[in-house]
Amino acid sequence: MHIPAAFNPPSRLLLGPGPSDVAPSVLRAMAQPLVGHLDPSFVKMMEEIKAMLRAIFLTKNDMTFPVSGTGSAGMEFCCANLIEPGDEVIIGVNGVFGTRMCDVAERCGAKVTKVESAWGTIITPQQIADALKKVSKPKFVALVHAETSTGALTPVEEISKIARAADALFLLDTVTSLAGCPVRLDDWQVDAVYSGTQKCLSCPPGLSPVSLSPRATEVATKRKSKVQSWYLDVNLLSSYWGQERVYHHTAPITMNYGLHEALRLALAEGLESRWKRHEQNYLLLKQGLAELGLEIVSQAGHQLWQLNAIGVPAGVDELAVRKQLLADYNIEIGAGLGPLKGKIWRIGLMGEASKRENVATVLDALKKILKR
Amino acid sequence: MHIPAAFNPPSRLLLGPGPSDVAPSVLRAMAQPLVGHLDPSFVKMMEEIKAMLRAIFLTKNDMTFPVSGTGSAGMEFCCANLIEPGDEVIIGVNGVFGTRMCDVAERCGAKVTKVESAWGTIITPQQIADALKKVSKPKFVALVHAETSTGALTPVEEISKIARAADALFLLDTVTSLAGCPVRLDDWQVDAVYSGTQKCLSCPPGLSPVSLSPRATEVATKRKSKVQSWYLDVNLLSSYWGQERVYHHTAPITMNYGLHEALRLALAEGLESRWKRHEQNYLLLKQGLAELGLEIVSQAGHQLWQLNAIGVPAGVDELAVRKQLLADYNIEIGAGLGPLKGKIWRIGLMGEASKRENVATVLDALKKILKR
Repeated sequence: MHIPAAFNPPSRLLLGPGPSDVAPSVLRAMAQPLVGHLDPSFVKMMEEIKAMLRAIFLTKNDMTFPVSGTGSAGMEFCCANLIEPGDEVIIGVNGVFGTRMCDVAERCGAKVTKVESAWGTIITPQQIADALKKVSKPKFVALVHAETSTGALTPVEEISKIARAADALFLLDTVTSLAGCPVRLDDWQVDAVYSGTQKCLSCPPGLSPVSLSPRATEVATKRKSKVQSWYLDVNLLSSYWGQERVYHHTAPITMNYGLHEALRLALAEGLESRWKRHEQNYLLLKQGLAELGLEIVSQAGHQLWQLNAIGVPAGVDELAVRKQLLADYNIEIGAGLGPLKGKIWRIGLMGEASKRENVATVLDALKKILKR
Repeated sequence: MHIPAAFNPPSRLLLGPGPSDVAPSVLRAMAQPLVGHLDPSFVKMMEEIKAMLRAIFLTKNDMTFPVSGTGSAGMEFCCANLIEPGDEVIIGVNGVFGTRMCDVAERCGAKVTKVESAWGTIITPQQIADALKKVSKPKFVALVHAETSTGALTPVEEISKIARAADALFLLDTVTSLAGCPVRLDDWQVDAVYSGTQKCLSCPPGLSPVSLSPRATEVATKRKSKVQSWYLDVNLLSSYWGQERVYHHTAPITMNYGLHEALRLALAEGLESRWKRHEQNYLLLKQGLAELGLEIVSQAGHQLWQLNAIGVPAGVDELAVRKQLLADYNIEIGAGLGPLKGKIWRIGLMGEASKRENVATVLDALKKILKR
């Protein structure tokens, strides 16, 4: 066959819903030669990754490690390990990822009670409390903390308490929130959590950091039926990521090099500083958008700092603007999904990409394209 | 917390069961900045990856792409998409990976008939024919082509014909065989196949190339029940890897950069030349081992070129030798698993690592350590 030329990616500024721009030292880390997945040096690095993930998640959970797949694999990890066929679960649905979680949970055999809010708004404690009245034995209550598809951040502390009072586990999707705004597993008593590497951690996609509380770990290890996914079975994975180092699958070595470095950078910056930086650049963007007559359309008071849903003005061709941003300015932003398709743009300011100069760059480009 | 130092991997020669050594240009490709997973440049590269995978698998199968997980995720992809609860399947078991496939298939709801051979030997057509007589409606017959745990290569052409005559699909694990010895999907009428990137393709672990024949694709798309894994559902994945480019999960961008380059290198060398190189270095190793009084213990006439199971001589401490190879020579080789634990060493000569000089290096080190 004709062999294609070597791939030379164009130089983009990634201001979409992820992946986000990656720090040069993360890319350099990933270019290092391989070692084996049971090499003593790699095993030591695994321990460091686990410790750093605990620091990032603000948890003492022993069962904290990266699953060898993207964020959606982490979602499936949590559902497959906690759900046994026939279990009842309650899932907040206010965007793509809550919708997805219902599908995943049903494939695991769960009876799903959906708690729905309009896309762009949050799920309230009252909604969850009402749903719990209708469910006899809820296995877990699940929420998407930061809905990447809508830009809304649902406060979770009170919902977690309500779930616990009903003897349900509390499961949280932190794919977009982690390292971009406060995520406090232990303070909030989150029992099961998954995230992604390609959002505010600014590592390429390919791993999903997860963490299970002792309560959730007990559920997963004492279940009656086998976990339906061998690849994601925490009972097997914990033997590799734990002290026994039993071979399960071949860990993605290079991805772990990248995650190790990305976690180092996040912790060196400091979580509080990192959150503050995301907030400040969100405020800058919001102000600049207002000056262009543009508006963030997700619920006021609950807008994400790292992902901004911007209303497309009447008469403007949504797709044409994104195409021009990419073609003429090398800037990637995201489209709306589902009911928001054609109605919003999504501008991400995640991790490395959350920078004052990036805010200026994208605002300037939008100003020129929209002739404002 | 105390932030760990940047990870600097030791410089190893990877002669174990995988990962294998990676070409410098693959590492350089992976250090390139990210683009989005729907970027036109990335979409074009995805098409090139699919075309190159077809060339490597020697197939015209449209449904050919890399699953976003390691080889075991590919195994689960094949089982989860083809099996519906209650289906009968026949699986050849002559090592770790056949054993694993039974577990995966059972978790998918299959009734599994195991066809067992001693570890280190092959599965024969007669064994499969006998098993088929006992199974009323077999969904598929599955084999591990190259058993990484034992070093045995099972010939598959005749077994494929027997499976087809019984109206069963034929599923093949090519994790270790692909790009190291002949794998001819279309000639052999293989219906479902998965592989890994970290063996004879010499790309870091993290993706699993898969391919489904039109027959298997029809089974997966016309099934009655939903695929139990959302992450691995080919009905969803094909909308992203196909022409529609519907967002499913965020593809591991960097891993695909690496795979693209690794496939280019394999095709530039030429499949026939690459197979020949693996054969020649196997013969060199075998001869050198014989001169040290060491022997490859897998079935004569069916030994893998890329993975050699070497009997540990009586009175020799298996683990001590491996530890010394790693500590004093920076050479990684593999241990025996299951019933072969402590009884064999596994020396891989895979992809980039299958080199005349590597054969000499490991033989020299063994000679010194064993004082032969």
